[in-house]
Amino acid sequence: MTAAGRIRLGMVGGGNDAFIGGVHRIASRIDGKFDLVAGALSSTPEKARASGEALGLAPDRIYGDFKQMAIREARLKNGVEAVSIVAPNHVHFAAAREFLKRGIHVICDKPLTSTLRDAKKLVKVADASDALFILTHNYTGYPMVRQAQEMIHAGEIGAIRVVQVEYPQDWLTVAEDNKQAQWRTDPERAGAGGSTGDIGTHAFNLVSFVTGLELDSLAADLQAFVPGRAVDDNAHVMLRFKGGARGMLWSSQVAPGNENSLRIRVYGEKGGLEWAQEDPNYLWHTPFGEPKRLITRGGAGSGEAAARMSRIPPGHPEGYLEGFANIYGEAAVAIIAARSGEKCPPEVIYPTVQDGLQGVQFIDACVRSSKRNAAWVSFN
Amino acid sequence: MTAAGRIRLGMVGGGNDAFIGGVHRIASRIDGKFDLVAGALSSTPEKARASGEALGLAPDRIYGDFKQMAIREARLKNGVEAVSIVAPNHVHFAAAREFLKRGIHVICDKPLTSTLRDAKKLVKVADASDALFILTHNYTGYPMVRQAQEMIHAGEIGAIRVVQVEYPQDWLTVAEDNKQAQWRTDPERAGAGGSTGDIGTHAFNLVSFVTGLELDSLAADLQAFVPGRAVDDNAHVMLRFKGGARGMLWSSQVAPGNENSLRIRVYGEKGGLEWAQEDPNYLWHTPFGEPKRLITRGGAGSGEAAARMSRIPPGHPEGYLEGFANIYGEAAVAIIAARSGEKCPPEVIYPTVQDGLQGVQFIDACVRSSKRNAAWVSFN
Amino acid sequence: MTAAGRIRLGMVGGGNDAFIGGVHRIASRIDGKFDLVAGALSSTPEKARASGEALGLAPDRIYGDFKQMAIREARLKNGVEAVSIVAPNHVHFAAAREFLKRGIHVICDKPLTSTLRDAKKLVKVADASDALFILTHNYTGYPMVRQAQEMIHAGEIGAIRVVQVEYPQDWLTVAEDNKQAQWRTDPERAGAGGSTGDIGTHAFNLVSFVTGLELDSLAADLQAFVPGRAVDDNAHVMLRFKGGARGMLWSSQVAPGNENSLRIRVYGEKGGLEWAQEDPNYLWHTPFGEPKRLITRGGAGSGEAAARMSRIPPGHPEGYLEGFANIYGEAAVAIIAARSGEKCPPEVIYPTVQDGLQGVQFIDACVRSSKRNAAWVSFN
Amino acid sequence: MTAAGRIRLGMVGGGNDAFIGGVHRIASRIDGKFDLVAGALSSTPEKARASGEALGLAPDRIYGDFKQMAIREARLKNGVEAVSIVAPNHVHFAAAREFLKRGIHVICDKPLTSTLRDAKKLVKVADASDALFILTHNYTGYPMVRQAQEMIHAGEIGAIRVVQVEYPQDWLTVAEDNKQAQWRTDPERAGAGGSTGDIGTHAFNLVSFVTGLELDSLAADLQAFVPGRAVDDNAHVMLRFKGGARGMLWSSQVAPGNENSLRIRVYGEKGGLEWAQEDPNYLWHTPFGEPKRLITRGGAGSGEAAARMSRIPPGHPEGYLEGFANIYGEAAVAIIAARSGEKCPPEVIYPTVQDGLQGVQFIDACVRSSKRNAAWVSFN
Repeated sequence: MTAAGRIRLGMVGGGNDAFIGGVHRIASRIDGKFDLVAGALSSTPEKARASGEALGLAPDRIYGDFKQMAIREARLKNGVEAVSIVAPNHVHFAAAREFLKRGIHVICDKPLTSTLRDAKKLVKVADASDALFILTHNYTGYPMVRQAQEMIHAGEIGAIRVVQVEYPQDWLTVAEDNKQAQWRTDPERAGAGGSTGDIGTHAFNLVSFVTGLELDSLAADLQAFVPGRAVDDNAHVMLRFKGGARGMLWSSQVAPGNENSLRIRVYGEKGGLEWAQEDPNYLWHTPFGEPKRLITRGGAGSGEAAARMSRIPPGHPEGYLEGFANIYGEAAVAIIAARSGEKCPPEVIYPTVQDGLQGVQFIDACVRSSKRNAAWVSFN
Repeated sequence: MTAAGRIRLGMVGGGNDAFIGGVHRIASRIDGKFDLVAGALSSTPEKARASGEALGLAPDRIYGDFKQMAIREARLKNGVEAVSIVAPNHVHFAAAREFLKRGIHVICDKPLTSTLRDAKKLVKVADASDALFILTHNYTGYPMVRQAQEMIHAGEIGAIRVVQVEYPQDWLTVAEDNKQAQWRTDPERAGAGGSTGDIGTHAFNLVSFVTGLELDSLAADLQAFVPGRAVDDNAHVMLRFKGGARGMLWSSQVAPGNENSLRIRVYGEKGGLEWAQEDPNYLWHTPFGEPKRLITRGGAGSGEAAARMSRIPPGHPEGYLEGFANIYGEAAVAIIAARSGEKCPPEVIYPTVQDGLQGVQFIDACVRSSKRNAAWVSFN
Repeated sequence: MTAAGRIRLGMVGGGNDAFIGGVHRIASRIDGKFDLVAGALSSTPEKARASGEALGLAPDRIYGDFKQMAIREARLKNGVEAVSIVAPNHVHFAAAREFLKRGIHVICDKPLTSTLRDAKKLVKVADASDALFILTHNYTGYPMVRQAQEMIHAGEIGAIRVVQVEYPQDWLTVAEDNKQAQWRTDPERAGAGGSTGDIGTHAFNLVSFVTGLELDSLAADLQAFVPGRAVDDNAHVMLRFKGGARGMLWSSQVAPGNENSLRIRVYGEKGGLEWAQEDPNYLWHTPFGEPKRLITRGGAGSGEAAARMSRIPPGHPEGYLEGFANIYGEAAVAIIAARSGEKCPPEVIYPTVQDGLQGVQFIDACVRSSKRNAAWVSFN
Repeated sequence: MTAAGRIRLGMVGGGNDAFIGGVHRIASRIDGKFDLVAGALSSTPEKARASGEALGLAPDRIYGDFKQMAIREARLKNGVEAVSIVAPNHVHFAAAREFLKRGIHVICDKPLTSTLRDAKKLVKVADASDALFILTHNYTGYPMVRQAQEMIHAGEIGAIRVVQVEYPQDWLTVAEDNKQAQWRTDPERAGAGGSTGDIGTHAFNLVSFVTGLELDSLAADLQAFVPGRAVDDNAHVMLRFKGGARGMLWSSQVAPGNENSLRIRVYGEKGGLEWAQEDPNYLWHTPFGEPKRLITRGGAGSGEAAARMSRIPPGHPEGYLEGFANIYGEAAVAIIAARSGEKCPPEVIYPTVQDGLQGVQFIDACVRSSKRNAAWVSFN
């Protein structure tokens, strides 16, 4: 892709000390398909400016506020074609709206919004816009997650009976006062879900993506173990899917020894699959009555879907950033197709605003259920 | 121990094609403290005789029926001092009663009984007897399970918040018609629980043993995935413990790729522990804020409780049979103490009739909850 | 087997504080085919007596000396049929000779002898005797080692090219003065090999057993890292096999973090196999161009050879003691066949005096090579 | 870094179907410090042009030949400041010389050259140039490799005794005729070493980097198992280091089941370390007499050296591309310092032309030793 051909990207949020902003930037660079050219990187003007300068943005493309950025960039001849929204959750809706309504594609971090109301409104805004909306449920970008989806769709494990998904972390085991911890445990900014919103949505999205199952109802027992915490830091959820499959979901941020241990296991009538985010280049396939098989990314048994998401040969581990970059890569294909009005190739997959709505519905359902003593509630 | 000093043991059930009978026999032999001298090994007289002969029992110590055995052995000068009951669950109560009321110690397989009513009656019978009652919740005999209990009691992971326990298997993924599968999926013989009774009780017992937590209530969603199956083959259970800790329990016999994957993870305010039955010589200890530690049986960091249960140095793996033999070893110490009226040393631990009652209560609560749409029910 | 039918066993060495004596005793008990009835358990008479009493031996079957034991037991009507020799290496030859020449079967710990001269003499003695000689290279008793052998013999990995075997331990990382360490690092008692003799012979035997390859020559670089140590505590060996396969062997007793990490990897033209002693119920099979397969003991893909050596279902781990007991089990079949002059069934495999000779030749070759600056030397 | 501030980079080799060229390009992009602006991407002019266009290079910066590129770029006002040389080994020397003598920094793939003679000449050329020479022994860029080096330098495992390093692959198990396989097994293009040159040099470099040990001599037994192969595809090497430490090195490209299994274990008087490239975010630390510790990248126990090389939090796996990018990151710091004549910060580490010379000396010594029946030869 020529430098001129690269997608002109802006960013909302992601100032100097943010974690996820840096991740989005690397993800956008890995395959050389985006150029970051503008940003409203912080709600604090000075920090916005300092962060923009540190990233080498031109001074007139550094904005103190996303609305101002949307307005001006939409008018520029070479204004941004897409914007990454990586601010705290409660900002997602308003920011996405400003860009979508001006026809600028949005790549937005999860969860979609901090409230269900906002989520539903954002769906409408996105539906009404010609611009694309891509949600960075980045774990679906991992090649072996694609592999799992492909195998399940091909019937390799048969009709699904049981799903076990878990996402334990330990960084909130004690009360933390850093900025990351602050907003992620503040219901005003993060939404009503704590671990459910921050990571439970990833787990739920992963289940939906890999299995294709639709959730019917859930029963959730949420806890806030750390004194004074206003949102859940541990969640136990039982799942019932349409068609009869059942599942369990555990999210926790108070499980010492777990850094980012997202893990999914799916069992069908003919076999099972198991994948763990911390060792992402492996997929266990356990056909009933045959030896367990360890499929490696790009190795024997690894198919087309994984190959599309891989850059290097088996044995050369790809990681979180490459998985994240795969979402950007899918977005790039879609955006470039959109430039010329072409149809996006059918093999391109990225999480949509609908997936985002489901994530917020998941949080909402968990909170509703938990308030009713973990009664079963309809998912949506 | 002199041959004469060995404990004279009888057996009820455990004929030629049974799995668990052979396990009990090996377990009784490993440390040379028992001599199997009598048996009512099958409810089919011919099979009882053939099995007894195959085991080298004297012809007059081979019985066609446990009651006849209890009566005669109680009168013999060198009659059995203890009996292992390894028949299907529905036989446990009647058989145990015959021996207990004659002062013969009982070593009984789990679950305690096939009904809660029988379980409660058996508690009374055992309490009224001078003889000991030992339940073979064998997983508590593993050295690193003892290690985990010891560490938790010593406060090494702080107050417990979360327990994750799971016990998946795959042998009932499809309808099986072998004898093992038949009785274990027949509510008349196995009890109302399928996977909950056969393996869920082990998982629950392991939680109780390791953590010392008392269960307050549970919500259970049971499934029978294989068409025609009369008992659950998969169970999702949420747990609430007295004092505020929470847990999840998953038992399954339809999870392809899982042979006997009992696994427990406990998280407290200061750290975590993780143990897996299929790799039983390891215990992960994850103190919050420190590197993960892998403690090996007998290696550095492995303490007194594990040492009592070990025979060989670290790196020389002990397995299921040694863990099972440890229950027999504890039983032997208790029985030998009882011979002379001495008190059993305080470090001796074995599962009791009360543990057995709790196991049956666990099954009962799971079934009750599931019938009420997985509502929370009191544990006992 | 009736109690009367059990094999009457004696033991030389294995007094109270020995490690390997206890292992042999448990191994002999697990399957109920041996009765330990006599012993010369220590070269110190008092200790011999105390140890014998602790084991419940009849007073007149406790001997202060193996020769006296051999003479008397050979004359007794119900004297021992077999003897386990578990004394330090330099005692093996003299003890074995006394029993073999009286027609008493010998089960002897490895290495065969402390000198090559003794080894060769012992081969002659064994050949001249009607009694059996079984060497406890116990690692060949593990079911998945049998599985590996079976697969290689069946051609599943094709012609072998490369063998990697290693046996690191760490218990001699610093100078130790316990009894075990003393004799094992004393060339007078242990022989000229340190780690090579104590564990390198196991590694070499495992290679020979699993692959069927015959060693042609080796080049060995031996080290004694701990000051004052008279024998090697670390050995690097390159192997050349007849037919062109090559290998590397590493034995070490100064590798911190390794408890008993015997591990073998074999690569052929069509695939590879990998087995590790500390996780013995697993065997990796890596057919070229197909996904890696993890075969579990008794699970799918596990064959007849492993099944013969197994007692319990997959997922119920067997360990070191069961593997050791399998050597006793094979010995029992052979001894019982010998009682009646029957031929030993062809599927019975145990390490022989020839295997023992090869082990001592291996030590000798390592020492010879190392003295010549790790030059290639003929194996035998 | 402003776009203007980025380092202008050229590339020699790395046309469309090359593996390593793409890796270098991604590595140069991840941190946004380089802009690829010119290339002589293939020795076939048409392919050079097509590849350049595919990468979006300006037509006048696409060259058919590295010399032409060096000459012209050196004269351009905004010519390349650095060039990545990713052509086959036999091209390295001539290409590097053209750029170095014009003051253009060289980032060169390993091994340094295809002959020892070239390597020595290149050292002189590099020494005589003001430009920097960076060799992409990329495995030293992994954070946990830096962590291992830091711990060893800090004395955490004491004086080193034993090093075990291995680098097995399986992609040359059978004769391959793809382009990658062709040049890598052609002594004219790859050099005299096959597996020793392609991957053995990485293994040797990793040992040198992590331990700081200097190799004194080696004994190498090389094999070419696949019929017709002109270079080794399997190598067994014993190592003696100055100061008394010893090691073994195994490289293989015919070991089925091994994709890219570089692994190093280092044992000292006080402890051990173990790292595996396929699971690169983990480092085992085994202090003697304490439980094994699993240090994770960025987790507890992970220090400054690893932190400098990390982008994202623990539990979010980084992989091969990030490790490779770390070499580019170090190069960037050095190049930017060189722009203004500043001294490169002392914490910056990258493999130098001297490391490259040692790699070629390693290959040379292996080949010399093997020709002399694996006799010990001096390393340099």
